[in-house]
Amino acid sequence: MIAVLRQDATESQIESLCDWFQEKGLDVHISRGEYQTIIGLIGDTSRIDTDLLCGLSIVESATRVSEPYKSANRKFHPRDTVVKISDTVRIGGGHFAMIAGPCSVESEEQIVTVAKAVRQGGAAVLRGGAFKPRTSPYDFQGLGADGIHMLIQAGKAAGMPIITEIMNASQLDLFEEVDIIQVGARNMQNFDLLRELGRCGKPILIKRGLSSTIKELLMSAEYVMAGGCSDVILCERGIRTFETYTRNTLDLSCVAVLRERTHLPVVVDPSHATGAARLVTPMARAAAAAGADGIMIEVHNDPSAALCDGAQALTPAQFASAAADVLAVRRALGMEKDGEN
Amino acid sequence: MIAVLRQDATESQIESLCDWFQEKGLDVHISRGEYQTIIGLIGDTSRIDTDLLCGLSIVESATRVSEPYKSANRKFHPRDTVVKISDTVRIGGGHFAMIAGPCSVESEEQIVTVAKAVRQGGAAVLRGGAFKPRTSPYDFQGLGADGIHMLIQAGKAAGMPIITEIMNASQLDLFEEVDIIQVGARNMQNFDLLRELGRCGKPILIKRGLSSTIKELLMSAEYVMAGGCSDVILCERGIRTFETYTRNTLDLSCVAVLRERTHLPVVVDPSHATGAARLVTPMARAAAAAGADGIMIEVHNDPSAALCDGAQALTPAQFASAAADVLAVRRALGMEKDGEN
Amino acid sequence: MIAVLRQDATESQIESLCDWFQEKGLDVHISRGEYQTIIGLIGDTSRIDTDLLCGLSIVESATRVSEPYKSANRKFHPRDTVVKISDTVRIGGGHFAMIAGPCSVESEEQIVTVAKAVRQGGAAVLRGGAFKPRTSPYDFQGLGADGIHMLIQAGKAAGMPIITEIMNASQLDLFEEVDIIQVGARNMQNFDLLRELGRCGKPILIKRGLSSTIKELLMSAEYVMAGGCSDVILCERGIRTFETYTRNTLDLSCVAVLRERTHLPVVVDPSHATGAARLVTPMARAAAAAGADGIMIEVHNDPSAALCDGAQALTPAQFASAAADVLAVRRALGMEKDGEN
Amino acid sequence: MIAVLRQDATESQIESLCDWFQEKGLDVHISRGEYQTIIGLIGDTSRIDTDLLCGLSIVESATRVSEPYKSANRKFHPRDTVVKISDTVRIGGGHFAMIAGPCSVESEEQIVTVAKAVRQGGAAVLRGGAFKPRTSPYDFQGLGADGIHMLIQAGKAAGMPIITEIMNASQLDLFEEVDIIQVGARNMQNFDLLRELGRCGKPILIKRGLSSTIKELLMSAEYVMAGGCSDVILCERGIRTFETYTRNTLDLSCVAVLRERTHLPVVVDPSHATGAARLVTPMARAAAAAGADGIMIEVHNDPSAALCDGAQALTPAQFASAAADVLAVRRALGMEKDGEN
Repeated sequence: MIAVLRQDATESQIESLCDWFQEKGLDVHISRGEYQTIIGLIGDTSRIDTDLLCGLSIVESATRVSEPYKSANRKFHPRDTVVKISDTVRIGGGHFAMIAGPCSVESEEQIVTVAKAVRQGGAAVLRGGAFKPRTSPYDFQGLGADGIHMLIQAGKAAGMPIITEIMNASQLDLFEEVDIIQVGARNMQNFDLLRELGRCGKPILIKRGLSSTIKELLMSAEYVMAGGCSDVILCERGIRTFETYTRNTLDLSCVAVLRERTHLPVVVDPSHATGAARLVTPMARAAAAAGADGIMIEVHNDPSAALCDGAQALTPAQFASAAADVLAVRRALGMEKDGEN
Repeated sequence: MIAVLRQDATESQIESLCDWFQEKGLDVHISRGEYQTIIGLIGDTSRIDTDLLCGLSIVESATRVSEPYKSANRKFHPRDTVVKISDTVRIGGGHFAMIAGPCSVESEEQIVTVAKAVRQGGAAVLRGGAFKPRTSPYDFQGLGADGIHMLIQAGKAAGMPIITEIMNASQLDLFEEVDIIQVGARNMQNFDLLRELGRCGKPILIKRGLSSTIKELLMSAEYVMAGGCSDVILCERGIRTFETYTRNTLDLSCVAVLRERTHLPVVVDPSHATGAARLVTPMARAAAAAGADGIMIEVHNDPSAALCDGAQALTPAQFASAAADVLAVRRALGMEKDGEN
Repeated sequence: MIAVLRQDATESQIESLCDWFQEKGLDVHISRGEYQTIIGLIGDTSRIDTDLLCGLSIVESATRVSEPYKSANRKFHPRDTVVKISDTVRIGGGHFAMIAGPCSVESEEQIVTVAKAVRQGGAAVLRGGAFKPRTSPYDFQGLGADGIHMLIQAGKAAGMPIITEIMNASQLDLFEEVDIIQVGARNMQNFDLLRELGRCGKPILIKRGLSSTIKELLMSAEYVMAGGCSDVILCERGIRTFETYTRNTLDLSCVAVLRERTHLPVVVDPSHATGAARLVTPMARAAAAAGADGIMIEVHNDPSAALCDGAQALTPAQFASAAADVLAVRRALGMEKDGEN
Repeated sequence: MIAVLRQDATESQIESLCDWFQEKGLDVHISRGEYQTIIGLIGDTSRIDTDLLCGLSIVESATRVSEPYKSANRKFHPRDTVVKISDTVRIGGGHFAMIAGPCSVESEEQIVTVAKAVRQGGAAVLRGGAFKPRTSPYDFQGLGADGIHMLIQAGKAAGMPIITEIMNASQLDLFEEVDIIQVGARNMQNFDLLRELGRCGKPILIKRGLSSTIKELLMSAEYVMAGGCSDVILCERGIRTFETYTRNTLDLSCVAVLRERTHLPVVVDPSHATGAARLVTPMARAAAAAGADGIMIEVHNDPSAALCDGAQALTPAQFASAAADVLAVRRALGMEKDGEN
């Protein structure tokens, strides 16, 4: 950590600041210039609050040069985390999974049909929303507990583990048979929820918030991991920018950055990012090429007839074709392990 | 609402879509061009899901031309909402309030001292955080229930109503003696929480999310109002942009836009937006000039010594000076009602 | 084009507006609602100024539903444009090209060495900067005319066509032997320059501005095409967002969107977008998978020793490996035509 | 400047890097940690290229802690710059000016009428566009040389100095009788143009680019000042964000930041920022309260009838009212000097 002091800091102020750092167990290095004095701090600065430091009247700026996340940091845990989802499905460390299903569970028939279709098309995990966060209170909010029950049945019928989104910790009881609990983009910084989920013993997939930095995503993983959970999966799903042709801007560089900074697996969701079915396949191909450990795609049995979220859903046939492309890309780049997952 | 159809939409597809709109009680107007057909929908479209519409294979785009919010919409409720905070304090409709206090409640002595000082300096409402959402699990998270208790005592001691932030609905019992419940920027789209708060019978202040549009802020107000609450206060506190000199970019145009679009009062928080004490006074002056109904400012009894959040806090003396400036601006612009609030 | 009128527009105002539209040769369709009147305009609206329309006191908003670009629009020119760069190199319509070279031309020896190395590694076109736009007046600004001369020599020595950036129209004479003239991101809306380039008879590559929308990029292509030039290549090079781990955010969805909206070829520059050599290869792979017609990569003979722009440059060996990956991805996805380009 | 070295940097690499810094006349301070080594550089680092430093394989990151701008830096020139526009008009150092006029010069009659009206309403400087940068090649591009001539006549008729925008250096001859030359937002990083303007001996107003940081704006001022010009005026006119209710987001914090960082005067343009006449007055008031040295407002004699840019123009009467408000705010805040400008 680097602190730049103001020109008018007095010697005794600087001294008392340095004493305070040393009490925290940090090594302090001072560089004095004509217009500025710079203090370099070496040691475990993860528990030092940057805002706190900037709050001091003699400090002009404070910059963290080491990352404030530890459990999620590849520097301290160089080996890839492999998250075991079921007896046969793993994500991370070379294990790749296609995750597919409808945006919302609409009926048992619908979800079972889609489940079997995406399984056939190459999906390893079934997704489906039961609790839906909607911007408008007048929009459809999901089937709730019934939806989760239907999803569980569909997972069993198709022989697939399932993932679905939780909205608040009071719903946890309903998630006992859910294999991966998803934290949505809008809840990425619902710290109370993250803390609770860290104690529930299940793999947690955290979606990046619309305007969250990569560092903030890793700090949210840190919240979950601080509770004891090490099976965290990160998910890039587009960020908010000025561009309006796509719903959000899919940040694929984030995949490469995350692989470098963390040992946790990274999944990409091109459906929500682009908001347009016709952009999903090229972005799924690109996500695979960028090194994603999994790709989550919205699939609906009849997107054009359905009156819900069809805009971004693929048909089962389109999904199977996208999944085949993804596999082809992975093989071409030597990413695919034979006979696994 | 306007739907633009794809070039290849067939007559029978267009007809069945129009039938479906008419069943929803909407008037349908069709304009046919060489490359596009445009459908104009007149009537109550607030319950039509734009995503749903875009999902249809024959639809190229769908644009809402009337706002999806109703309860918060000035078009349907032209008169300003006046939120009654206490017997003597009101916000909105010409009533203006300075809200001040420390970022975090640290001790009973601290909060009582600050309360009396800001009251003296011109504040009408006391703020203070007890539950603090922090990006890092290793940072200070607030005093919790104890903090709320101290804040209540301080409010009584200084004779001021109080405002503090709630993190999740399970904390509601602790807020019985709180006068305004604050929803933080990170929870602006925690829809479960908003829905619960709409039923609690207290004024709710909603902070705009870091990357939330004005429309989304109004939709969040709509969630609270849908629960029966009409005492909603909106708060601009900076949005996330590419600029890094300030922590966030304070969007003061938002104040003028909100006054036009909604009858709800609008408060501005220059402390969190800028993250720097020396920018707070000019931005408080500007917020008053832009027409804000209230200004919320972080004040600490000893920002330079304190080891928490001092960067953006004013001293009580600086606050009193800023409050005097705000009053002067309001008087100069004829905004101040004599003898009130 | 759709115009939404204000509630208080009078009948005679509406009538005189409609007359004006009809004089412009447009068909006018009116839909009247309780709170709004909507006017749909069918016909060639590309010459109607949206700002102009919004300027009328009776207009609440005006939305273009057809694109304002015509020459670049795939709707009117469905077939891919193939840009002929040299006797053997083409870009677009299935023809793909790797473009490689140093950020700046430093010396004849350097540029010849790099040229031969990238040719060997799979590049079809040589890049190298002679005029460098730098944020600081104190930074190195390029070798200018000498640099262009060296680049031309290196292209001849390696048997490759060359591309380099122009800063203003007065430099055009120096570009006679340059095969593709590049317009940098900062000049994307230098309309005087675009207009001049449209008349110079050479292929023009336009880089997307840091904060330019896809539509604005297409409008800039329209400026060049309005001058008579049809050989325009578009280049995605990252947009400015709040994320700071990468220099800019590479928007690969833009590639898929552009392929849908325009017939012009699309090139991706992962070096400038990410600003970090270690992210270039994954992003080059992803760009190929997303369907780019070309990839532009910064290569330096000795990035670690060189004291210029090395951060984002690959070594020739790294480039050869990335180029092989790109080819593998294209083959796996059936994008590669045999025996061509 | 701070450089953080990679974990795997060898002693001899570090040593040779430090030698290189010392050759540049910098003092070097090394802090060694377990995972990182930090180098602090003290001295004149403005000529060190950060990109260059990051390019070295042993460098993880490099951060500038002192600003790269010198001539524009308040640290080195604490006194406010006062720009003399005419015998009676000054901007900066307590001198304030309203700048007003139409977006485009349309005819001599129009510009003379507006000039007299805004003079009457409190404007000190007359604005009017002759060369208009337009996104679409099909939109009106301004009257060019004729427009400048009309503007000069109008300035003389009303007894006001004038400001108008230049698009490229080849137009300079036409600007001989122009009092302030404006560089538009799209040309803020047209470095060739900036360099030329620095030598022309006239006051230059630089508009902040849509996606330019405050630092980049200051660096553009630095380009002009490097040519010998010290009469530079900075102009905030809104930045591009995700918000779409306003055309751009007016960043008023920028005014307070600039007053702290630079001695150059700062002007605010609420018309282009908001794009809506009804938001101009509240934002003009706010800009004055934030401490702007001038406010530039679009005024048209008949915005509702005119078919050009009326959306954001005030009528002369609205302008006079806004100007009176601005004066009232300035007086209330003690900003107004008696008997001057």
